[in-house]
Formats: sequence, structure tokens, C-alpha cells
Amino acid sequence: MKSNWFFLAMLAFVPVSIAAELLHWDPVVIFTTSVLAIVPLAKFMGQATEEIAVVSGPTIGGLLNATFGNATELIIALVALNAGLYSVVKASLTGSIIGNILLVVGLAVFLGGLKFKEQEFQPIVARLNASLMTLAVIAMLLPAAVHATTPQLVPGAIRNLSLATALILITVYILSLIFSLRTHSYLYELVEGEEEEHPRSKVNVPLAVATLLGATVLIAFESEFLVGAIEKTTSALGLTELFVGVIIVPLVGNAAEHATAVTVAMKNKMDLALTIAIGSSLQIAMFVAPVLVLAGWAMGRPMDLDFNLFEVVAVIVSVTIVNSVASDGRSNWLEGVQLLATYAIVAFAFLFHP
Amino acid sequence: MKSNWFFLAMLAFVPVSIAAELLHWDPVVIFTTSVLAIVPLAKFMGQATEEIAVVSGPTIGGLLNATFGNATELIIALVALNAGLYSVVKASLTGSIIGNILLVVGLAVFLGGLKFKEQEFQPIVARLNASLMTLAVIAMLLPAAVHATTPQLVPGAIRNLSLATALILITVYILSLIFSLRTHSYLYELVEGEEEEHPRSKVNVPLAVATLLGATVLIAFESEFLVGAIEKTTSALGLTELFVGVIIVPLVGNAAEHATAVTVAMKNKMDLALTIAIGSSLQIAMFVAPVLVLAGWAMGRPMDLDFNLFEVVAVIVSVTIVNSVASDGRSNWLEGVQLLATYAIVAFAFLFHP
Amino acid sequence: MKSNWFFLAMLAFVPVSIAAELLHWDPVVIFTTSVLAIVPLAKFMGQATEEIAVVSGPTIGGLLNATFGNATELIIALVALNAGLYSVVKASLTGSIIGNILLVVGLAVFLGGLKFKEQEFQPIVARLNASLMTLAVIAMLLPAAVHATTPQLVPGAIRNLSLATALILITVYILSLIFSLRTHSYLYELVEGEEEEHPRSKVNVPLAVATLLGATVLIAFESEFLVGAIEKTTSALGLTELFVGVIIVPLVGNAAEHATAVTVAMKNKMDLALTIAIGSSLQIAMFVAPVLVLAGWAMGRPMDLDFNLFEVVAVIVSVTIVNSVASDGRSNWLEGVQLLATYAIVAFAFLFHP
Repeated sequence: MKSNWFFLAMLAFVPVSIAAELLHWDPVVIFTTSVLAIVPLAKFMGQATEEIAVVSGPTIGGLLNATFGNATELIIALVALNAGLYSVVKASLTGSIIGNILLVVGLAVFLGGLKFKEQEFQPIVARLNASLMTLAVIAMLLPAAVHATTPQLVPGAIRNLSLATALILITVYILSLIFSLRTHSYLYELVEGEEEEHPRSKVNVPLAVATLLGATVLIAFESEFLVGAIEKTTSALGLTELFVGVIIVPLVGNAAEHATAVTVAMKNKMDLALTIAIGSSLQIAMFVAPVLVLAGWAMGRPMDLDFNLFEVVAVIVSVTIVNSVASDGRSNWLEGVQLLATYAIVAFAFLFHP
Repeated sequence: MKSNWFFLAMLAFVPVSIAAELLHWDPVVIFTTSVLAIVPLAKFMGQATEEIAVVSGPTIGGLLNATFGNATELIIALVALNAGLYSVVKASLTGSIIGNILLVVGLAVFLGGLKFKEQEFQPIVARLNASLMTLAVIAMLLPAAVHATTPQLVPGAIRNLSLATALILITVYILSLIFSLRTHSYLYELVEGEEEEHPRSKVNVPLAVATLLGATVLIAFESEFLVGAIEKTTSALGLTELFVGVIIVPLVGNAAEHATAVTVAMKNKMDLALTIAIGSSLQIAMFVAPVLVLAGWAMGRPMDLDFNLFEVVAVIVSVTIVNSVASDGRSNWLEGVQLLATYAIVAFAFLFHP
Repeated sequence: MKSNWFFLAMLAFVPVSIAAELLHWDPVVIFTTSVLAIVPLAKFMGQATEEIAVVSGPTIGGLLNATFGNATELIIALVALNAGLYSVVKASLTGSIIGNILLVVGLAVFLGGLKFKEQEFQPIVARLNASLMTLAVIAMLLPAAVHATTPQLVPGAIRNLSLATALILITVYILSLIFSLRTHSYLYELVEGEEEEHPRSKVNVPLAVATLLGATVLIAFESEFLVGAIEKTTSALGLTELFVGVIIVPLVGNAAEHATAVTVAMKNKMDLALTIAIGSSLQIAMFVAPVLVLAGWAMGRPMDLDFNLFEVVAVIVSVTIVNSVASDGRSNWLEGVQLLATYAIVAFAFLFHP
């Protein structure tokens, strides 16, 4: 594929960012180069995961995709969590969810809609995803709502509620995998179509495993650089950590997925485009976020699910509009415009939020 | 029916709870035995109402079910209102609504879905119920919203708004009965099917009337015991009145309905299961709550509809997810899991809410 | 048409209100007569716009309707903005949106439903309008949400966010016109049917242009009288400016549209009724409100989109229930009752809101 050359070229930012870090260059340079280095690493890690998934058969493959599909976001978040940057971690979760359902779905629907008058997709899967997303939003909203409506909180109440919520979300996530891979896999069959890109016979398993491991290690290093430079970069550029966490970090980890979703939408495979984008949001909300809560608890960096109220509002409005657009099983370019406009307004709001 | 023996056996708690009250046993014992005594009484009162309804013909019968369907909740709430326990009353209303649409619908959809791959039901009735439920939520939200967004409230403003809202809700409730029993009864015919259980010829009317009256009187006494012991029980068990009101009290009054809804769902009668559960929520919101406002006003115990903001949030999220799950006229086990998971998260949130 | 005589007779309020203003009569009289004078002027301006639109062909005509369809509201709002009555301006925007989607749609659905058992309309157009309305609500909500969740706002943040949001909304509005008039006009063709009333051959273009100009000038004068008397009138009648802005002013500007929507609904043209009412709400939210922000900025009367939180709640609940009612493409009288009941509760809430 042509685009691979582009991402291979971007790997040049890996040594540059390492040099920037070791030679103590300006934090803005360290931040920028590590951000740019993560883009191709995330791309190749995702590609290797998919190749191994193809070889492993549908069930194990589905599990692999479901677990490592957002590995980049998870690694960046773990590093930030370890550094105690709770609000950056939460903001990057919010931003990943919003970015996937507004920016990626919006671009896919808009660009697909410019090429095809009306595009159709399975409304059943769209509605199941919508109600799972609603559950995820509720899980995000309730701790913040308890916090906001309680004058004097018992110490630890929010943390205990977050732990309980995290366990419930992971349980539902596992059950939703059983649903989509086992008991009701027929509903999802029409959505498939990715395998063509990685024909089973062409997969070089040792190479894929090596790529996966190498990319994971490098992403972990780059995340350290990125997180280490984030504070000075934000103050140098006059941005808030919230804005960087919500808007910039998620763009990095998801750039490759964004490209894939838009590409398949322009091939009129809206089902696949929506599955990639909304599935990724669901994974962030129902797997990555709870794993971070549990990991934080194990690491002695207790993270709760008590998001900033404005983040909660932003996620609620995003899920509301994407459900409103997707529920009828057809899309057109104006619906893409609506999602992109919502993303723009939300991004401006975060920019002006101190 | 086999289950009747179980409920007959539970009637033993009636004399036990009376003994506990008269002999001034531990409040926790009084609370527990009166709670357990109400379960079979509510069951037999409901059964008697249905039998009389069958004999009275569809219209009067429909009215009877619509008026006495939640008589247990109404009696408990009136006793609590008379004792001035406003927040317990409101919490039990919230809890009945949430319990019916999350726990009962969730169990019915989940257990029905384990037996049948996909279950179908009339989307038109589901949507009408959804928009009535939305209206009920709006009526619950607005007084709280006026309260929360107003720095200095004129005395009596919330009470007047609650009275006006109560009158509007009762009017819409009566109109919805005219709709379902008269002008558009054909939409609801497919939902029927309960009558088989109580064949008209087998109904013993005097026995049914005697059961109804006897159960009503006993429930009123048991409610007095329950309400009298609630304060000491909550502090002895380390629970809040909000938690007891929202989670425990509603489980008691609705236990028999819960069983019925789940049973019919497992016979693939999802329409009937949803009508019982969502219909019960609607009755609480559009008939029991307004009646309590008017009764409180008449009793000199003025109750308003200014719910705790967190209760409002809980009802909003419950209605949102049940509408999201039910709007397409089909259900599967994963949707049941989503409702139950939401119930669990909401219950934890109330547990941690001080 | 018979109704024209009624509106012609109401023109008598024009000289009466001018006399009241010049002779410094009681402000309540000035307010009332100018309000009553605007009703027929708005009617004839709307009629003239439609006639010119018919002659101009579908595209230019669509643009004319889309731009001047709410000219009365725009003129009143500009005059109020120039007088610095920001909260009246915002309240009249909120009230126009709420009035159109609750009162007008509610009356149309209710009265139409009394005549026809079930009425059908194009669900695709209804859903597109629903998601556009959702976007408009988000745009209204976010500045208020930033305000409410931020302890210390950077000066100008809300104003800059409002300007950015206004530009985005106008862009989406223009794109939605391109969608409905150009790229996807076939979706809207079934909705048409208005042209019969103004057959092309009968349009007297010079008369229509003269009516348009004359009515515009007179509405501007009447608005000056109305705005000048508003403060003394509200205090004399014991009403708040919020109530007058939200409930009374919008009734005036929209009275003629209300009549049209109800009339066509009773002819079983629900598509047209919904297009008039919901389209008018969309125009207020996505065109009139942003134009006022930009005009205010140009006039040195900077208006933001930071609405009172209770207004935001009212708009959210209105859009939620109208979407819930309209999304399935069929309506009945009970759904009309639900919308009217919501309007009544919202109106009471504004009445009791200090």
C-alpha cells in the first residue's frame, strides 16, 4: 500500500525524538517529535495486531482486536497515570471517545456521502452500539453527578464507586464480546470485510509478533518523552492540559484508525467504518478506562472515574448526536457535517475552558 | 399455581411483624418482618384486583388496574408522608420507577433472551410509552431545575409549580387511559393475554373483594410498622434513608410484579412483560406521584416534586437507556445485561451517596 | 381567504399603537396594542415573502423563505438588542424555539389527530430535522456549560466561543439549504404542497414587494414601541422579563405560522405542518440567533450565546420530547397532548422562575 511509505517515512521521528529527549532539547520539540513518532508506531502495531488476529481465527482474532485495538492510548495513559497526571489521563479518554464518534464518524460519513448519495448500514448493530455507548456514558456521568450533588462526600466514596463501576463495565464488555463473537455473531457477519486486506496466506507471523513487541516498547518510550514534556509544552504554547489531553493526544493515537475508517467509508462500507470508529470509542469507555482504574489501584495511583463536569457534558452531547445520526441505518453528507460541526464547537469550548 | 403456596407461607410474617411491633422488639426486626409481610399481601391484593377487573369488563377493568395497580406503593407512601418523611416518599417513587424500568425490564429481557435468540414486541406501544415516560421525567426534572438554577426562590414557588405539574400529569394520565382503552385500543390488543390466567367463570367475586379489603388494611398497618422503624433501622445498618427509599422499599412493593414480568418474558410474551414493567413506572410517575402531591396538600403535609438532583439524574439515565433498548421492537440478552448493569451502577451510586 | 379579513381588521391596531406611543398612554396599553399590531403585519409580510418566493422559482424561493421566514422575530430581537435588553433577546429566542416545537407541533398533532386516527409523515426528513435540532441545542448548551463548570472565566472567553459557534451554525445552516434545495431536494419533494395556495399566475409582484417593505418598516416601529414599554409593563403586571420574553413575545411573531401549521395538519398534511413548525425552530436556532450574535458584535452590543441554565434545560427537554414523538413517522392525538402538556409545565416553570 502506498500509505505505508508515508508511515515508514514518519518513523524517522523515532530517532529524532530520542535525540531530542537525550540532548534535552526544547520541551516543545520533544513533545512534537514524540507525538509524530507515535503516529507510525501506532499504525504498525495496529497492522501487526490485525495480521495475528487473521491467523488466529475469528474468535481469538476478535479478542485480540478487542484487547489491543487501543493499545497506544492505553500505553500513553498508563505512563501519564504513573506520572500522576490524572487529569491528562481522563482528558485523553474523553478526547478519544469524542474524537472517534464525532471526528472519525463525521469524516467517514461526510466524505463517503460526497461520493454516494445515501449510504446504508445495519441499524441493529448501530443500535446495539448506541445503547452500549449510552451505558458507558452513564458510567462516566454517575460519579461526577454524585460528586456535584453531594455537599460533603465521605472520603473514598468516589473511588469505591469508580472501582465498582469499572468492574461492571469490564464485565459488560466481556459479555458484549461473547455476544458478538459467539451467541449473536450472525448479526456482525455483514460487517466483516477487513480480512481481504490481510490475506491469511501472506501473513508473516514472526515478523508480525516482532513488530508488535518492538512497536509496544517504542511507544512506551515515546509516551515517557511526551508525558515528561507535556507540562512545559502546554505553558509554552498557552494551552491548557485539558485541551492537549482532549484534542491533541487522541488525534495521535488514532490517526491510523481515522484513515482506515474514512477509506472504507469511501468504498461504501459504512458498516465497517462505523464499527471501527464507534467500536474504538466503546473499547476506550468499557475496557481502557476501567483497566486504568484497576491498574491505578494496583500501582498505588488511585484513579477514579470522576470526570470534569464539562467533559461529561461533551461526551453526552457527542453520544446524543451520533445516536441521532446513526439510528436509522442510513447516512448522507449533511449528517457528516453535523458531526464535524459538533466536534468543532466542542473543541472550541475546550480551547476557551480554562 | 405453585408460587401461591410460597406467598401463602410468607403470610406468616404478618402475625410475626404484629408481635414484633406490639412487643417492641428491635427496630431492625420490626422493619424486616413488616417488609417481608408486605410482599405476599401485595401479591394477593394485586391478584384480587385483576380478578375483579376481569369480571368488570375491559374498560372498567382497565381503569381498576390503572388505579390500584400500584396500591401498595401508594399506601406505604401515604403512611410515610403522614409521618413527614418527605425524602423517603420521594426516594421510593424514584426507586419504583428505576426498579421497574431497569431491574424488572432488565431481568425480563435478559432471562427471556437466554431462552430466545431475539424477542419481538410492538414498537408503536413501546414508543408511546417512551414518550409518556419522557414527559414524566420532564415533570420530575423541571421543579428541581428551577430550584437549582434560581439563587433566591420566592417562597411557595416550587410548591405551586408542583401542584400545577401534578394536575397536568393526572390529566395526561387520564387521557392516556382514554387513548388505550377507547380511541386506540386496537394498538394494545396484541399486548393482551393476561386474562387466560383468571378465567372469568372461575372468579369468586365476594372472595376477591374481601381479599382486596383485607390486604389493604393489613398493608396499611404493616406500612405503619415499617415507617416507624425506618429511622432506627437505617442508622443501625449504616444505610442512608435515600438508599432504603430508592432500593429496598420499591423491591418490596413490586416483588410480585417482578415475578410476573419475568415469567411472561420467558414465555416469549415480551409485549406483556414490557407493559407490566413500563406501565407500572408510568403509573408511579403520572398517577401515584401527583396523587401524593394532592393528598399531601389536603393532609396539611405539603409535598412538592422537587426531587434530589441525583435522583433526577438517575431517572433520566434509566429512561434514556430503556428507551434506547426498547425503541426498535426487538430485544436480546445483551440488552438485558445493559439494563441490569445500569441498575447496579445506579444502586452503587446511591449506596455511596451520603 | 376568510382569515385574511380577520388580519386586515387587526391592522387597526397599527394606528392605535402609534397614537398610544405618541400620546404617551399607559405603557401596558402601548405594549398590548403594539403586540396586537405586529400579528397582522407578520402575517402579511410572511404572505408577501411566500408570493415572491413562488415567482422566484424553487431555489431562490427556498432561500427567501429560509432567510425571511422569521423576519419578525429578527426585527423585534434587533430592536431589543439595540436597547441592550440581552436577556429579553435570548428569552425570545428560547421561547420561539420552544413555542414552535411544543405549542405549534403539539396543536397540529393534537387537532390533526382528533380528525384522523393516525397521521403519517416522512421519517427521514423528521430525523434530519431532529439531528439538526440536536446540533442547535448543543450549540446553545456548550457556552452555558462552560460558564457553569468554570470557577474563574477568562474575560471574553464566552464571547469568543459564542462568535465561533455562531459562525459554525450559520455555515451548517447554509449547507443544510444546499442539501434540501440542491443535492437531496428529492427527499423534500413529498413535503411540498404550499404552492397551491399562491398560484404563480395570480401573484402581483409589485404589490408583494410593497407589502414586504411596508410591513418591515411598520414592524420595526412597532418593535420600538413594544421594547420601550416592556420594562414598565412587566413590573405593572407582576411578570418577569424572562416570562414575557419566553412566552408572550414568541406568540406574537409566530401567530400566523401557528394558524397555518394547524390548518394544514387538519388537512392531513403532517409533513408540511412539521416542516413549518420545526423548520421555523431550526431557523431561529441556526440563523436568527447567530445573526444576532454577529449583528450585536457589529453594533457594539456584544451578545453571547450564554443562555440562562433553565432556558437551556427547557430547550433540551422540548427537543427531547418532540424527537421522541416525531421519530417514528406517525402521530396521534395523545402525542399532541404530551407536547402541549410539556409546554404547559415549561410555561408554569417560567412563570414561577424569578
